[in-house]
Amino acid sequence: MREEFQRVGSTTAWEGRIVSARVERWRYADGEEVDREVLGHPGAVAVVAHDDEHVWLVRQPREAVGDPALLELPAGKLDVEGEPPLQTAQRELVEEIGKRAESWRELEAFYTSPGFSDERVIVYLATGLTDAPEGPQPDEGERIEIVPWPLERLPDAIEACQDAKSLIGLLALSALRR
Amino acid sequence: MREEFQRVGSTTAWEGRIVSARVERWRYADGEEVDREVLGHPGAVAVVAHDDEHVWLVRQPREAVGDPALLELPAGKLDVEGEPPLQTAQRELVEEIGKRAESWRELEAFYTSPGFSDERVIVYLATGLTDAPEGPQPDEGERIEIVPWPLERLPDAIEACQDAKSLIGLLALSALRR
Repeated sequence: MREEFQRVGSTTAWEGRIVSARVERWRYADGEEVDREVLGHPGAVAVVAHDDEHVWLVRQPREAVGDPALLELPAGKLDVEGEPPLQTAQRELVEEIGKRAESWRELEAFYTSPGFSDERVIVYLATGLTDAPEGPQPDEGERIEIVPWPLERLPDAIEACQDAKSLIGLLALSALRR
Repeated sequence: MREEFQRVGSTTAWEGRIVSARVERWRYADGEEVDREVLGHPGAVAVVAHDDEHVWLVRQPREAVGDPALLELPAGKLDVEGEPPLQTAQRELVEEIGKRAESWRELEAFYTSPGFSDERVIVYLATGLTDAPEGPQPDEGERIEIVPWPLERLPDAIEACQDAKSLIGLLALSALRR
């Protein structure tokens, strides 16, 4: 099937602070045209940061899902114009956990919900951790609790995490360690 | 930290066909109030369906991410009022793959992007597959190619898939089979 298609129209339906909604028109090779609602998102990064003893997680309130303390990988949106994703990941690891890492590599990259959103998340593996001299520096209004999770209880973290980036990052880490 | 919080206001900013956007106001235990943009989504199900030889995947155009043939688990939105998620998953497996399954169990459940969306996806494991007499029945306008992926090449499917539900489902299947 794998036919090509092209976008032939796009109208902004709503502009939020982080995401926006467009109604796009697409044309297939056979001439059929369809309208699709598309959420525009800047994309994000997440970090699986571990040393010999811990994988470093955070708990924070997530209003969208009504959870006052969701357990997640440290992460952040690509919301600084021109900043490469790896640099965003390095910045977020300092801001949320207060750590730097010597070694970085891309572990996974994925679309969160390709049926209606263009959000793509890159998950990095960060090792060779040292304390950042400046310590954690949460953004104003962020309520982040740092959670050093014992690496030997990684399966429990997979059980406890409830969001895509954290499950993907920790399942991939678990596969690497087998 | 784990303080409680409560929603004290919600305004609809945009109503699409599938998703809607709200601006919600939340109050923390310490009295601080914040505004959050929240995408409302009905939720979805996905199915890891396999027999001894294949895990059954689909390719379909995903306009939101500009991919004419994204490789994914069969899946669907919870868009039938009152239909329990397991029943939606069973219906989608018939419609997209043309299979029924004798055995069903929940493999994972996750939020796709809890920073701004309430979408939650339940991933089921389906085994004991038989051909559905009615065969695949794609919805009007769906362009779905059925992809029987050899189970022995599961790591390649994990490499080829690019979306959250498919990575989570296939990584979890891979962990089960070790």
